[in-house]
Amino acid sequence: MAPGAFEVEATDGAARATRLETAHGTITTPLFMPVGTKATVKAVDPSELEALGAQVILANTYHLHFRPGEDTVRALGGLHRFAGWERAILTDSGGFQIFSLLDTARIDDDGVTFRSVYDGAAGRFTPEIAMAVQRTLGSDIAMCLDECPPAGATRAAVARAVERTSRWAERCAAAECAPGQLRFGIVQGGVDVGLRRRSARSLTDLGFDGYALGGLSVGEARATMFDVTEQSAPFLPAGRPRYFMGIGDPEAIIRAIAAGIDLFDCVLPTRLGRTGPAFTWEGRLNLRNARFARDPGPLDPDCRCPTCARFSRGYLRHLVTQGEILGLRLISVHNLAFLLDLTSRARAAILAGTFAGFAQHSLDRLAPDR
Amino acid sequence: MAPGAFEVEATDGAARATRLETAHGTITTPLFMPVGTKATVKAVDPSELEALGAQVILANTYHLHFRPGEDTVRALGGLHRFAGWERAILTDSGGFQIFSLLDTARIDDDGVTFRSVYDGAAGRFTPEIAMAVQRTLGSDIAMCLDECPPAGATRAAVARAVERTSRWAERCAAAECAPGQLRFGIVQGGVDVGLRRRSARSLTDLGFDGYALGGLSVGEARATMFDVTEQSAPFLPAGRPRYFMGIGDPEAIIRAIAAGIDLFDCVLPTRLGRTGPAFTWEGRLNLRNARFARDPGPLDPDCRCPTCARFSRGYLRHLVTQGEILGLRLISVHNLAFLLDLTSRARAAILAGTFAGFAQHSLDRLAPDR
Repeated sequence: MAPGAFEVEATDGAARATRLETAHGTITTPLFMPVGTKATVKAVDPSELEALGAQVILANTYHLHFRPGEDTVRALGGLHRFAGWERAILTDSGGFQIFSLLDTARIDDDGVTFRSVYDGAAGRFTPEIAMAVQRTLGSDIAMCLDECPPAGATRAAVARAVERTSRWAERCAAAECAPGQLRFGIVQGGVDVGLRRRSARSLTDLGFDGYALGGLSVGEARATMFDVTEQSAPFLPAGRPRYFMGIGDPEAIIRAIAAGIDLFDCVLPTRLGRTGPAFTWEGRLNLRNARFARDPGPLDPDCRCPTCARFSRGYLRHLVTQGEILGLRLISVHNLAFLLDLTSRARAAILAGTFAGFAQHSLDRLAPDR
Repeated sequence: MAPGAFEVEATDGAARATRLETAHGTITTPLFMPVGTKATVKAVDPSELEALGAQVILANTYHLHFRPGEDTVRALGGLHRFAGWERAILTDSGGFQIFSLLDTARIDDDGVTFRSVYDGAAGRFTPEIAMAVQRTLGSDIAMCLDECPPAGATRAAVARAVERTSRWAERCAAAECAPGQLRFGIVQGGVDVGLRRRSARSLTDLGFDGYALGGLSVGEARATMFDVTEQSAPFLPAGRPRYFMGIGDPEAIIRAIAAGIDLFDCVLPTRLGRTGPAFTWEGRLNLRNARFARDPGPLDPDCRCPTCARFSRGYLRHLVTQGEILGLRLISVHNLAFLLDLTSRARAAILAGTFAGFAQHSLDRLAPDR
């Protein structure tokens, strides 16, 4: 089937099991997508990601534009060959990094001027440039350039960002894509459901291949985030994939699936992996705690990842406390496996019509996390 | 066959192909042994080491004694289960670390008092303690505690170290071992061939399962090191394995094999892997060099390791210059694969009676390294 073909295979309440065709294979959802910022999921090898069942990885347009540069990536065969990953790749537009990495962005109606975090050099992204960089990189899913206001922004500022994001989306929709490359629009609107509706409508009119909720999980209250997600998901077309940008804790993913979201990404599993905490079905487990020093059990007895198959909590604690690279590798792999397993179990439950029970049971088990 | 059984399968000049039985499998030599100081070969997973054909890994008695402590390792099932490695493990005695890590060692005839590098706490090793720690860890090959003088030591100081090492070896030989655990003696003598002969004789009288050359590759001139190795290897009994402690560059390994050495270890391949340089058959390759930025080829076209199978020099350079953990992982794996392949090729050449040609051809190719 052609890239972009999309099917809702089953619904269970608002939750959905779907399939999306890309130029590098079929994606089945709900699905967590590991983040490989600089074309590498930190500390993890592509062969490990394949074995864990990862279907899509993210890469970051902003970072790759500066290091090593999209022309170098193209010279080395494009993003897939560059990263040694032949499954699907989603690139974000760089908007989030421009607005969050350095407080130097100066926005105008045409685009945004900023300073590179690498060397302070002047940079400029416009909707056309963001799409051109993603076209050169050769990702399967390109994201529109959006304006992402911070959590505390006034309603007026958020409304202006919604308008600008819509105008930029129009220009992104008009830009040329790589062969088979899909284009997703990003709905803004902060925590204002009315603005979310307006943003979704104007984007939907442009006919994107998928729609994302951006500008959430950026510092707002957690209950607010869930509330806005539940109310905004129905604004996104039922006939296209729905993507919540930047969420990676197990409870939040389950709640977003329940709200009708299909795709998720976050650096959380690998960021936690590099510092110690591990996801388990009984909540997070901090390996630095001395009580694990002689614990012969696996991180999570319910997990079948390579880390849990081979290593004890005691050994992992030794690695983490000694700052050994293998420790952060093994915990990163486990945390990714956990989220991939979680979205895979959610999918099975939706297909079986048992999602509500699965979600409640899972949230109850994960509660010690809170 | 019982642990300790040893057979010289073939000789070719002074070079040997041998087999040694251990409690965790048969070791075939010549063989490079990856170093897993704190019970982890830095940045590398045991499953990767298995796939590369590693037969023995080292672990470090000094470090494991302090972190996490040998009793914790035993509580977690012993060193093999602890590290997730079911093949053979060799533990060094801690002597090298005591004498090299901190300038605080005070030696007496009974043992050595020092301060831990971890927290400055007072530590003491005697021959009996070193063997007891290794017994508790449960390694397959335990090394005797030796006194390892620095490269610039006077002949008198080296002679005293030889005498003390011999008396300590006697006490190590009398100590209890773990079931199936082998014991290797360490020949000292610096760059004085006469002292090397004396040291080897007194150790040989004690009947160890194998013999090591210690106190070389510690700062002496390279030509001197080769010379002493060639002259000293014949002092080690032909009917037991011979181990050169702490050498890991390809040229030196080939020369030591030619001198009749069977076993090698060094942190070099993983230490280089963490900073960038990669072994190749055409010499070391420093990935930080800008000329590799768009190089689509593998690190070494002659290498069949997972790194060379999947990733380009250009991508690896990107990872290294960006400080990405995957970069140091992939280069560490490649460097280990290179040395394991090197000793495996040397073994095949010895068995085929073509070692002299292999060695000369290899040294010629590796020459750009110098």
